[in-house]
Parts: sequence; C-alpha cells; structure tokens
Amino acid sequence: MLKYINLGYKPKKRDVVVEYYVEPNGISLEKACEQIAAESSIGTWTTISTMNPTIAKKLRPTVFSINKRTKEVKIAYPPELFEAGNMPEILSSIAGNIFGMKVIKSLRLQDIHFPKQFVDSFRGPKFGITGIRKLLGVKNRPLVGTIVKPKVGLNARQHAKVAYEAWRGGLDVVKDDENLSSMKFNKFDDRIKLTLKLRDKAEQETGEKKIYMPNITAETNEMLRRAGVVKKFGGEYIMVDILTIGWASLQTVREANLGMVIHAHRAMHAALTKNHKHGISMLTIAKISRLIGVDQLHIGTVNVGKMVGSEEEELHIEHDIEDKFMSKNEKGHVLEQSWYNIKPVLAVASGGLYPGCIPKLVERMGNNIVIQFGGGCHGHPKGTRKGATAIRQALEATLSEIPLKEYAKLHPELKLALDKWGIA
Amino acid sequence: MLKYINLGYKPKKRDVVVEYYVEPNGISLEKACEQIAAESSIGTWTTISTMNPTIAKKLRPTVFSINKRTKEVKIAYPPELFEAGNMPEILSSIAGNIFGMKVIKSLRLQDIHFPKQFVDSFRGPKFGITGIRKLLGVKNRPLVGTIVKPKVGLNARQHAKVAYEAWRGGLDVVKDDENLSSMKFNKFDDRIKLTLKLRDKAEQETGEKKIYMPNITAETNEMLRRAGVVKKFGGEYIMVDILTIGWASLQTVREANLGMVIHAHRAMHAALTKNHKHGISMLTIAKISRLIGVDQLHIGTVNVGKMVGSEEEELHIEHDIEDKFMSKNEKGHVLEQSWYNIKPVLAVASGGLYPGCIPKLVERMGNNIVIQFGGGCHGHPKGTRKGATAIRQALEATLSEIPLKEYAKLHPELKLALDKWGIA
Repeated sequence: MLKYINLGYKPKKRDVVVEYYVEPNGISLEKACEQIAAESSIGTWTTISTMNPTIAKKLRPTVFSINKRTKEVKIAYPPELFEAGNMPEILSSIAGNIFGMKVIKSLRLQDIHFPKQFVDSFRGPKFGITGIRKLLGVKNRPLVGTIVKPKVGLNARQHAKVAYEAWRGGLDVVKDDENLSSMKFNKFDDRIKLTLKLRDKAEQETGEKKIYMPNITAETNEMLRRAGVVKKFGGEYIMVDILTIGWASLQTVREANLGMVIHAHRAMHAALTKNHKHGISMLTIAKISRLIGVDQLHIGTVNVGKMVGSEEEELHIEHDIEDKFMSKNEKGHVLEQSWYNIKPVLAVASGGLYPGCIPKLVERMGNNIVIQFGGGCHGHPKGTRKGATAIRQALEATLSEIPLKEYAKLHPELKLALDKWGIA
Repeated sequence: MLKYINLGYKPKKRDVVVEYYVEPNGISLEKACEQIAAESSIGTWTTISTMNPTIAKKLRPTVFSINKRTKEVKIAYPPELFEAGNMPEILSSIAGNIFGMKVIKSLRLQDIHFPKQFVDSFRGPKFGITGIRKLLGVKNRPLVGTIVKPKVGLNARQHAKVAYEAWRGGLDVVKDDENLSSMKFNKFDDRIKLTLKLRDKAEQETGEKKIYMPNITAETNEMLRRAGVVKKFGGEYIMVDILTIGWASLQTVREANLGMVIHAHRAMHAALTKNHKHGISMLTIAKISRLIGVDQLHIGTVNVGKMVGSEEEELHIEHDIEDKFMSKNEKGHVLEQSWYNIKPVLAVASGGLYPGCIPKLVERMGNNIVIQFGGGCHGHPKGTRKGATAIRQALEATLSEIPLKEYAKLHPELKLALDKWGIA
C-alpha cells in the first residue's frame, strides 16, 4: 500500500492544500489520514495491479500536518490530480467519497487553499464591490434592502407594490425570497415586468438608483431564460440559491457572462455547515462562490439575527471574500489565500434583522455590506414604507455616529421600530 | 403570529408531506416546529403588515404529527407553496434556511412525500431497469462492472486498455471514477474515443454487449458537450456526480433528453447523510434523483464494503427507487409514495467490494443491481482480466446456488480472489 503521511513535507506553491477535521472510527488518526488521502486521490482499499511508481510519484498527495489534540489535518494535493476550472470535479475528489467511509466517524472540510493555477481557471465576480458601487452610485455606505414578505403568497401586482413602497421609503435594494420562483399565483415573467416598472417609477421619484434582485433559481436553461426576461425589462441583477442549484449550474450562470450582478443566497448551506465536526465549512462555500464568480454572498449576521454563525467565523469569511490576500489563521481554520485577479465579493447580512441591528452590524462588518431586512421592514407598525424609512434613518444615524435613541427623537419611523424591536 | 400546529389535521392527497428529525435549541419542540413551518413557507420571525388572511389560509403548512420521544415531526405543505418541476426551488423551501436557525440545534430531513402533481412534473428515468436490461440483453442477473483504477493517473491509452481487459475478463460494465474528468494527461475526448473503440473490440470478441460509463461531471454546458462526444463515438451511457454538479444541472442533463443512460454517482452525499441527526437522508436524495430521472444510482453495499450505510436503510432506498408504490414505515422514517408513471431506477452497489461479497449482495439486494468492483477487480493477484473473470465466476456460482469455495475448486481465478480477500 502507498503511504501518504510525511510530516517533513513543505507544501509547494502549486499544491492544493486542504484542512480537514477528522474523527476516526476504530482506527488511529494516522491510519484515517492515510485512507482519506488515498480515497480523495489515487488510492483504494487494496493493492492494485494497475498502479505504477510513475503515477504514484506524480500524483500522490501528502498529509503534512496532523494535530492529534485538535484532530486537524492538512493534506497537500498535486494540481495534476484535478481539472482546473471544473469545481464539481475538484469537490468530487476532496469533498466526495471520503465523507462516507466507515473508518471515519466525522469529517469536516475546513478550508481549501487554491494555488494560482486554480484561481486563474475561474472567472470570479464580474462586478464585485467596485462594480456594484459604480452601478448604484453609492460610494461608501452600506446598502440597505428588504426581502419581500410573506416569502411566498403575494401575487405579482402585490409584490411589485410592496417593492415600490420599500424603495420609496428609502431602501436601495428589494430582493425576492429564496423560495419564491414562478408560482401559480405569481408568475416569474409577470412579477419581473411589474416590479421593474415600479422600480423605474421609484427611481424617478426619489432620484436614487434602485435595485431589484429577482430569484431565478430553477433548472439551468430555465434560469438563463429567466435572466433574459430580467434583462429585457431593464434589470441589472439576478439572484440564485447557490446550494440548491449546485456548482455546475452556478458556473454556467457565471460563464453565460450576462452582464448582470449575481446575488448568491445560501439556503441549505447549514445542512453542510452547522455541525462543526462534520460537513463543509461556510468559509469553503464562500471561497468556492467567489472563485466561480458571484458578486454578492450571504455570510451571516455576526450573531445579531435569527441564524447561526459566530462573529469570528463570519469576519474570517468576510475577509476571505473581500481581500486580495488572506493570511492563515490556525485557530480559525483559515488557510493562506492569494486571490490574484479575482475581484472582491460584497458580503450580505440577512436573517432576523431590524433597524436596531445596524450599528452593531456596521461596527463589526464595516461599510462594504448589504444589510437585508424582511420582517424588520414589513413588520414596522406603520407598514413597509415607514419600515424602510426607519431602516434608512438607522443607517444615517449610524454613519453620523449618533446613537439610535437620540436620532429617534426627531425621526418617528425609527422610534416606532425601536419601540417594537429594540436595539441589538 | 400564525400558528402551524394542528395535530388533528389529516394530510390531503395533494399535500407535500415532509418528515423531519428536530432537536430544538433552548425552546420547546412545539415552538421549534412552529418556526420550522414558518421559515420553510410563508412566515418570518415577527408579525408583518403584508400578510393577509387569504394568503395564510391558502398557503399555511400544518404540523400534524409530533413525536416527543423520537423528536420526529411531520409537516404537510399545500402544493401552491412550490413550483412543480423546479427541484432547486422545492429544496430551498423545505431544505433551505431552516437548517441554519439558531433555535434549532439539529435538523434532519428524513423523507419527502411528493403528491401526484409533483411526481408528474418531473421526467423520471428515460431507460430505468427495463430499458437498461433491453440495451444489454441481460434479462435477470445482476450486472457486474469495474471502476478503472487508479482513480486518476492512467493516460487515455492505459485507461482504455484496462477497460478492455475488464470487459474481456467477463464484466459488463466499465466506469470512470468520480474524480476522473478531463485531466492534463488523460483528456476526456481522447479517453472516450480510445475506450469506446476497445469496447467495440471486446464486444466482437466476447459476443456480449459491453458498457462504458464515462464521467462527464463538469460545468453544465461542458457536460452536455462531453455527452455529445460520448454519443459521437457510439457510447450509450453517461455518468454524473449528482451532488457536486447539483440539482439544477442534473435536471438540465435529463431534460436534454440525450437518449443515453444516466448513471448517478453520489460522491459528497455523506457530508449531508452520514449524521443521523442533521442534514438530509440518503432516501431523500435517492427519491429526488429518481424524480429528476437518473437511470442508475449508487445506494450502498448493505454493510459489506468500505462505505457506511445500514442494510435496513439501504433496502428501503432500493424499494423506493424500484417500486411502483412505497408503503410507509414509521420506524424506517419512510413516507408512503406512489410513483405513477415514473420508471424504476437500477440500484448500484459499489465501494470496497470483492468477489466474495457477491452472494450476500445478491441475497440482500436481489438481481436488479449493478455490482461495481474497483480494487476488488484490479487488485486480483493476476491482474485486471483475471480479476474480472473471478467476479463473473462468483456471480455464476451465486446464481447457480453453488458455494463460492466449492466453485473455486474448478475456477482458479475465483480461488485466487478468495485467497486474497475472503468471503463476506
């Protein structure tokens, strides 16, 4: 049998490096590492006649770090093992069969370091932070938006009306919910036409650029058709549920080069990411998304909303999707990553947010974020438009460094919001 | 706030019914159910102005069963909540944000019951068991095959040669491994051309129909291009890694109606399925795959190979992908399912198998299976061809109800295999 462990090995610049958390099942951690390295590359469970020393030498990965205390393991894979530019194939290797092995109790893919050759083989975002800011004409402040609520239920006309109210109230962005696509009572094409028409009206009336992010999630060709409908009616954005459509389709949507901003919703991610001992980290999902080329990505709410996610982890994620270079952070399970020519992704905070969350979000996540409010907008005691106004007021107060309570004295919409939901 | 629990509710025939395992985090199981029902449908975390009684009445799901002991919960969703025929959208609802909620510690989607309207909205397999048997001219026996090994490493010519040896030795099927796509040293188009040429030769020499299942896993359009290459050189099969390409792409591949058998590999499934308290069950993944329309699906090795999976669970999966009607099984977390016009899928057993596994596999899984051997073929002491022969001999012995040890007395290839690996 081949051997894969070599703790003296120093990863080459061209290697793909993967960090795993490994809990063996009835064997030693070392033996588990051997089997993971084999199954994710060129090996199998028995000696085989078709293996030869040339193949083994050229393609064998190396387990170069084993931390027995934390059960963290690092493996360096030669790039020839993978097809550059083919994300499903890369994941079928390093995030494939290994999860199902009997000899492994739990396995978590913590991070992947992609060398230059692989970074260059993907497109990355077409717009990224700079492109989005240019499109909106908003230089420094966070963008604020809403998700039309109820998630599903309004007809196309009602949907467009709620969107209009939100824009008129002061929001930049209106977004479909992740489970709204083309329903019997709210057909995609009708919704897009009506909503973008009212977007134009809101733009004229407010003098601000307004954004609608329609959810095109569907079978690949139908997604591309829907993107065409959005474009036809003057939309510049599309939204996709990246986990439920899958990586091959996300690549297809990006490679279609539609000239539209891609907003990535991450519904289902926590089926993979929530358990810290098994599955795939959100950091990994975020890096894959940046490589493939989404422009905006939901990364969490640094612990102020309804969804899980630690502040520390989410800030690592934000850095890794925004920065040119990510330093390694042993404790945070973050590998070093150079992003070369790949543009930064705009982080999205969403999930159980209300106006009183804005100061904390901006303090922790900075200005390069989109803050999305669902119930925290439409749940305002005076309805959607006032809810939107309250959000914009909370943002203004935050940017002017005025305490929300203070600002609320002269801003009744904000006051009502704070009275209902408080300050995070 | 809306209420979703009604334990007196009897699901309607048209409802989509979902069974979850739910571990709440700091709240009661009932409250957790309310929040799961809300977040997966029309609700959010606060009261909202845009909700109205008509929407609530028409679209509200009902939690109709809560088992406090086992933490199993059943929810019936009205079909209007979903877009029929759009698998990503359906999953974004019932397998989306809910995994990430703070108030839920663990959540597992155990099964989905699809009503007729939804079953009819997907294509299902084009070939299925009957179509595959007709293509091969093999009426009753299991199909036996190999995965070319090493997983990645051979060049196109070597790959074709190993495939030829396996076919000549007696196997029906040769399959690429899940991480082999188009490598620098083994380009997809070259491999297909050379391997299918030697398949033709093997067919002529043996008088048997031989199958090559090339892995087309890639970005969607590239997958379709690769499928075209396979067709051009006379291939009838394509293989995809369903989890790493994702559901939108799988739908696209099926809807392209290529006239080719689709073999589904499930690399990465265990990131979702392995933990019995969190994620998505393999049964659910299998049902989704049947609905969309794969013809063959890896379901496990009923506990004789290297991969996890209980015999009971895998037999439920086999029934649910093969039968016209699946009865409910409370203990096995299986919901009733009628399959209407959707064809049966051929189950594939693969992962750490060797000739000595065949009797148990056939006894437990029946004749409607493909049994795949990787190391258990190429690891034969006399190489691939003899390994293939040993497998075919083990199959013959099993079908003739002759003990392998007995049969091995007159069949030296089988004897060598039993000497190396034993009998499961």
